[in-house]
Amino acid sequence: MTRGRRREHYQWNMDIFGMPKVRAESELLQAIILLFERLGITSSDVGIRVSSRKVLQAVLNMYSVPEHLFTEVCVIVDKLGKLTREEIEKKLVTIGLSSEAVLGIIEVLSLKSLPKLEEVLGSDVEAVADLKKLFSFAEQYGYADWICFDASVVRGLAYYTGIVFEAFDRDGKLRAICGGGRYDRLLSTFGSEDIPACGFGFGDAVIVELLKEKGLLPDLSRQIDDIVFPLDEELEGPACSVASSLRRQGRSVDLVEDKRLKWVFKHAERINAGRLILVGKSEWERVAGGSRTRAPAR
Amino acid sequence: MTRGRRREHYQWNMDIFGMPKVRAESELLQAIILLFERLGITSSDVGIRVSSRKVLQAVLNMYSVPEHLFTEVCVIVDKLGKLTREEIEKKLVTIGLSSEAVLGIIEVLSLKSLPKLEEVLGSDVEAVADLKKLFSFAEQYGYADWICFDASVVRGLAYYTGIVFEAFDRDGKLRAICGGGRYDRLLSTFGSEDIPACGFGFGDAVIVELLKEKGLLPDLSRQIDDIVFPLDEELEGPACSVASSLRRQGRSVDLVEDKRLKWVFKHAERINAGRLILVGKSEWERVAGGSRTRAPAR
Repeated sequence: MTRGRRREHYQWNMDIFGMPKVRAESELLQAIILLFERLGITSSDVGIRVSSRKVLQAVLNMYSVPEHLFTEVCVIVDKLGKLTREEIEKKLVTIGLSSEAVLGIIEVLSLKSLPKLEEVLGSDVEAVADLKKLFSFAEQYGYADWICFDASVVRGLAYYTGIVFEAFDRDGKLRAICGGGRYDRLLSTFGSEDIPACGFGFGDAVIVELLKEKGLLPDLSRQIDDIVFPLDEELEGPACSVASSLRRQGRSVDLVEDKRLKWVFKHAERINAGRLILVGKSEWERVAGGSRTRAPAR
Repeated sequence: MTRGRRREHYQWNMDIFGMPKVRAESELLQAIILLFERLGITSSDVGIRVSSRKVLQAVLNMYSVPEHLFTEVCVIVDKLGKLTREEIEKKLVTIGLSSEAVLGIIEVLSLKSLPKLEEVLGSDVEAVADLKKLFSFAEQYGYADWICFDASVVRGLAYYTGIVFEAFDRDGKLRAICGGGRYDRLLSTFGSEDIPACGFGFGDAVIVELLKEKGLLPDLSRQIDDIVFPLDEELEGPACSVASSLRRQGRSVDLVEDKRLKWVFKHAERINAGRLILVGKSEWERVAGGSRTRAPAR
């Protein structure tokens, strides 16, 4: 329970199944960025760090670290920034990595530039090809200014297999706003056949903090279209007819009674009502005539 | 767990605080009826049975039944229709009612006409005055054909104090659709001061069954505005630009790739897309010219 982390929350999930190519990830990123834009958030407020689990995979291959340690390494290095570098190194050595491999991992994870990554890993590894493709798509979609490569992003969940990403506030005050990635081998752990898949989770807690911070939290106060007020107690029935008729047209109506006219005027101003409808005796008799007891049917 | 009763459900609650008069109940009823109307349900499909806890109160007074037995009697007689008349009578005798009182209660609860109720209880009891007022409001609001007096409605919850009501399907196939009433003395049981209050609960389970039954369940399938399809694999990037530009205008866009043109046409027809946009090489070059890698900014 900290800022942006509650006991219970709502979460927007979006997942794409059956698309093995990184265009799927580029679609997920666009959906996230369109939401930000519609909320009034700009790329100066928020960025999305992107990497790939295959980066770490490639480094582990370079140092011949056994395949089965991959998940454990991911979970440990996700704690970079929470634990000290020494603690991370110690944990990696404990599970059986050579100190050479540990240094190699730490070095690669500190990279923030795709060309540098290509220099270290070579251009023929999938990690580099995927990321280059994704950044090229970002140009095409027109959201390149929102995303940046950051090898330290691995995400804490064990099941990711490819691209991983997380959105952050550029002021660095808040937790990750949302996060996700590719998980091509998750379904088989539930006994199903594997299907290429990627997706993200976007909780409501951090984004609300950010919107408050930026003064962008929308004002969701209810708008009343009409106030209906009978000028006389015996006009209560006719006032009901008027209110009912308006509501059947889909208008939002506040039917007021037992108040003084002065209060009603103030109330109308206070809630910024569209119209104030006063039901008066002679007017009602003139307008409604014989059919006064029934509002017009829809 | 039966039809219209699930382990978990959503419920629409509406409550009015601070209004002691039955106009509050008449507003609640209008809200319910407006919802029915907007869903396409008519007063031939659904009715709302209305009574008042004060009816039972008046009968108990007639037979000098002690005040403290009131709640228990309510809970027992709410089971009329679920238990046999004999079982109800036995339960009422068990808690201490005379057989005369029991017969009187059963007789009054079988009444379906307000004039008859007035005959039995007299016109000066609150129950009769409240109900007459409510039915007169119903005329004014224009929903009189939706509601009917039925003394057997008492509702199972102990806390109701005045008007009670429940909506039912006229075919008699389903459980109550919604129900509510006045509960002027509930708040003090939570340590607060009492405030005049009435409200209803309207679950999502029974209404969905009814809408299915009547063929009125709305089709909530998603509408796709545009399908964007690159005619050539190398036009994938430009297709992203086009999709992105349209989405930024708020349109819902399905970006299709790796399919044959024939499939795309069928797909567009199947999902009833508003437009199918084909991105062709020469057209793209002509339109986009030098700025082809970037979609127009919003």
